[in-house]
Amino acid sequence: MRISVFFTPLGVTPQDVAGRPVLVVDILRATTTIVAALGHGARDVIPVIAADEAIRIAQNLEREQVLLAGERKAVRIEGFALGNSPREMTPEAVQGKTIVMSTTNGTPALVAAEAGAPVLVGAATNYAAVADRARAAFEQTGELVILCAGKEKRFALEDAYGAGRFAQAVMPEGKRRSIALNDAAVASLELVRRYGDKWKNAVRASAAARDLAGKGFRDDVTAATQVDAHAIVPVFRDRHVTLEPLD
Amino acid sequence: MRISVFFTPLGVTPQDVAGRPVLVVDILRATTTIVAALGHGARDVIPVIAADEAIRIAQNLEREQVLLAGERKAVRIEGFALGNSPREMTPEAVQGKTIVMSTTNGTPALVAAEAGAPVLVGAATNYAAVADRARAAFEQTGELVILCAGKEKRFALEDAYGAGRFAQAVMPEGKRRSIALNDAAVASLELVRRYGDKWKNAVRASAAARDLAGKGFRDDVTAATQVDAHAIVPVFRDRHVTLEPLD
Repeated sequence: MRISVFFTPLGVTPQDVAGRPVLVVDILRATTTIVAALGHGARDVIPVIAADEAIRIAQNLEREQVLLAGERKAVRIEGFALGNSPREMTPEAVQGKTIVMSTTNGTPALVAAEAGAPVLVGAATNYAAVADRARAAFEQTGELVILCAGKEKRFALEDAYGAGRFAQAVMPEGKRRSIALNDAAVASLELVRRYGDKWKNAVRASAAARDLAGKGFRDDVTAATQVDAHAIVPVFRDRHVTLEPLD
Repeated sequence: MRISVFFTPLGVTPQDVAGRPVLVVDILRATTTIVAALGHGARDVIPVIAADEAIRIAQNLEREQVLLAGERKAVRIEGFALGNSPREMTPEAVQGKTIVMSTTNGTPALVAAEAGAPVLVGAATNYAAVADRARAAFEQTGELVILCAGKEKRFALEDAYGAGRFAQAVMPEGKRRSIALNDAAVASLELVRRYGDKWKNAVRASAAARDLAGKGFRDDVTAATQVDAHAIVPVFRDRHVTLEPLD
């Protein structure tokens, strides 16, 4: 059995993910925002790399059914209805909508994970639900790839800690030695040793949390650490993120 | 004061390094091999990305003075005199020679660091000497960039641990709180907490150590953990790595 963590989507090839269960983590903020949107009744989320691609896709959908969302340098893209804040994804705003979303780190990570099966979208806010789903996939296939979005192509502490939490959650008690961990998985588990189960402490120690606070998004950091606020498992498939139907 | 660690050269821009002291770390094996070569009397090392570029540069030098060295997938490049093993860099082989070197991870890291001032080449085998030099540069400029080679564009445990050791070595006692650490620096210091001052334990836990052992290079892993075998500080400047003259 093998758990592989990648700290950024850079250098991840389709072969690394193809046919394997992949869990994408972008705690600050894209996966947290997607969880909030779907948790509050959005129909689906379409992640795209470029802002103009988002606009083009939105133009082909019913105007009343679609919302553009996204950021550059943490700030809402001009002309877009929504930024990348989980707090914007209220039921009033998103109920029944398709959200076409372009963010700096999260959407490239989702696109890099595209060939995975399944591609799960994880955050602190749906930790237990997605950990259960990832554990089931890991037990079935013997593999799990955890792909961190990182921050501007670099290591991000909050995502690495999250990766460690998910890795730890899927490993059967007492069987850690029989699981092949790549170097990044080893390091992410060390971060769990350091911060324990305190999402808040790990997330607040990150550069992304400091940057967001400096740009007026301090409450987004708080929102990102509302552990298990949503018992949902978003799945990315055929370019759309939707909720996996409950059995 | 600021210490920034990068786990791979991917995503590192000239602006990240320009004019700042940079310490390049590729424990398995390129910086260890460079330290061995210069420690055993090589005149200089010229790191280049492509094998054909190495051949071209060598052709413009006196045949008796030059050696080609390098690997792909850990194995010596065909036609090259040397691979990337520190154990090949014996005084008999390298004394007085210019070594033109192309390796998978280490030489791209050196090239990415090129705009630094100075660019120091660090390994366990010259740990104390290069830590002293890095500390002096850090005290003078208030900055230190530690650039890990990583492994095939990904996080490598042995380099991250090394980065943590160097970061720890340059931080004045009791002043850690006054130093801005990026997320990767925080994580690398956690690895030092985990492995303490045991280079061997950290290096042996890495995927690179397992890969090298599987390819018959187990002794290279041992060689890479001969702490302070060489009290030298290789510096990369004007495309050449040479020993910094002692004061």
